[in-house]
Amino acid sequence: MAPKSVSGKLIGVGLGPGDPELLTIKAVRTIRAARVIAYPAPDDGHSFARSIAAEFMPRQAIELPIVIPIYDQRFPAAEIYDQAQQEIEGILNGGTDVVVLCQGDPLFYGSFMYLLARFAGRHEVDIVPGVTSLTACAAVAASPLCGRTSSLTVLTGTMNNQLLERKLGEGGSFAIVKIGRHLARVRQVLRELGMLEDSTYVSHATLPSQRMMPLADAPEDAPYFSTILVPGRFDLHGSTQA
Amino acid sequence: MAPKSVSGKLIGVGLGPGDPELLTIKAVRTIRAARVIAYPAPDDGHSFARSIAAEFMPRQAIELPIVIPIYDQRFPAAEIYDQAQQEIEGILNGGTDVVVLCQGDPLFYGSFMYLLARFAGRHEVDIVPGVTSLTACAAVAASPLCGRTSSLTVLTGTMNNQLLERKLGEGGSFAIVKIGRHLARVRQVLRELGMLEDSTYVSHATLPSQRMMPLADAPEDAPYFSTILVPGRFDLHGSTQA
Repeated sequence: MAPKSVSGKLIGVGLGPGDPELLTIKAVRTIRAARVIAYPAPDDGHSFARSIAAEFMPRQAIELPIVIPIYDQRFPAAEIYDQAQQEIEGILNGGTDVVVLCQGDPLFYGSFMYLLARFAGRHEVDIVPGVTSLTACAAVAASPLCGRTSSLTVLTGTMNNQLLERKLGEGGSFAIVKIGRHLARVRQVLRELGMLEDSTYVSHATLPSQRMMPLADAPEDAPYFSTILVPGRFDLHGSTQA
Repeated sequence: MAPKSVSGKLIGVGLGPGDPELLTIKAVRTIRAARVIAYPAPDDGHSFARSIAAEFMPRQAIELPIVIPIYDQRFPAAEIYDQAQQEIEGILNGGTDVVVLCQGDPLFYGSFMYLLARFAGRHEVDIVPGVTSLTACAAVAASPLCGRTSSLTVLTGTMNNQLLERKLGEGGSFAIVKIGRHLARVRQVLRELGMLEDSTYVSHATLPSQRMMPLADAPEDAPYFSTILVPGRFDLHGSTQA
């Protein structure tokens, strides 16, 4: 293990849901000071993470795109991150920090966890939390996620019907992320559970392409970055006991 | 309903978990432009929300503390928010925006939901999402909250043992917020479920008073702003199928 005093730090920086104004002061400061910036890039070449942070990236920064077929459920594959680890490790061992751009928050459904698992305990790792798409969607819909003593369960559209039905039957508030091509199926599950009327659809929250509507009206060709919110029924007037 | 063209807007602004550097650019811009700023203040007078935003608040801004005994489970009471509604409504009707400071995110266990319920549909409401204590705790612990197709369930320390046991038995990742005086009881529930060894305790994340340790070592006199993280077991190397 390289002595931390001379080795560079791996710094995962949350960028928020998409609006560059939703970067934190700390994220901006960290990116502006970066000499090496890594970020996930789907194989079509356009990196959502990079596009959020672009205006804050120093011109002279070295860029390390981590090319990942993120829309393919069989990936991300270990090989991609093993290779990224080798590249990044060489830079860290040279005493230079590596900033990793993470859309949303690095540890909330973020691919940063694959790098974290490879560097934790071997190099210093800092994480700058970011605004998640979860709270951004709630803000767009002006819909409370959870309150008082209610629970909030985050599910994914990739879950099978049996698991979705079991989880959704547990009560509390729900958010279902990564809807994409699963919209019609997930909507049918919610309809059968009598939860469709309470469900709101939000896609690309805080981006110019943002859409928000009742789930019943949502298009079946939903993008990967779309979420369904199903608020629990909790007291909104503060008049009851917790 | 007042015509939106002349009425002021109610603007809920998420401030993040405590470190002022974790405010978003949009939050800072909104606070700096504010003429009237409301915020929850516990009855001991010190407002955590105000303390996070203090350095960005215009000197000439009018302040509206909403005094709430937040550590008393019988509150917040409707009367407090009914009174705040009257004060705020008068200002909005005069055409002035009212910025409401919200620690964390306004819609994630935030008291802002009580104001939202009173003004939604009657006045224009904007919400600036913020970094939650949830992702801040995960960043401090360098522990992924959820990944791939895993679920994340957020529970509260105020839940009774039966509900906690049922929820924790459902699988996935968990965060238990608002631990406070419930620490010993919640820890015992986790111990009985065989989840204690995987549990991490974080209090006052990102503040100078921040503490992070294995739950087994956590003090029983935990503050209200403390959280227990119980990560699910998901593939951290990207080598398996989703």
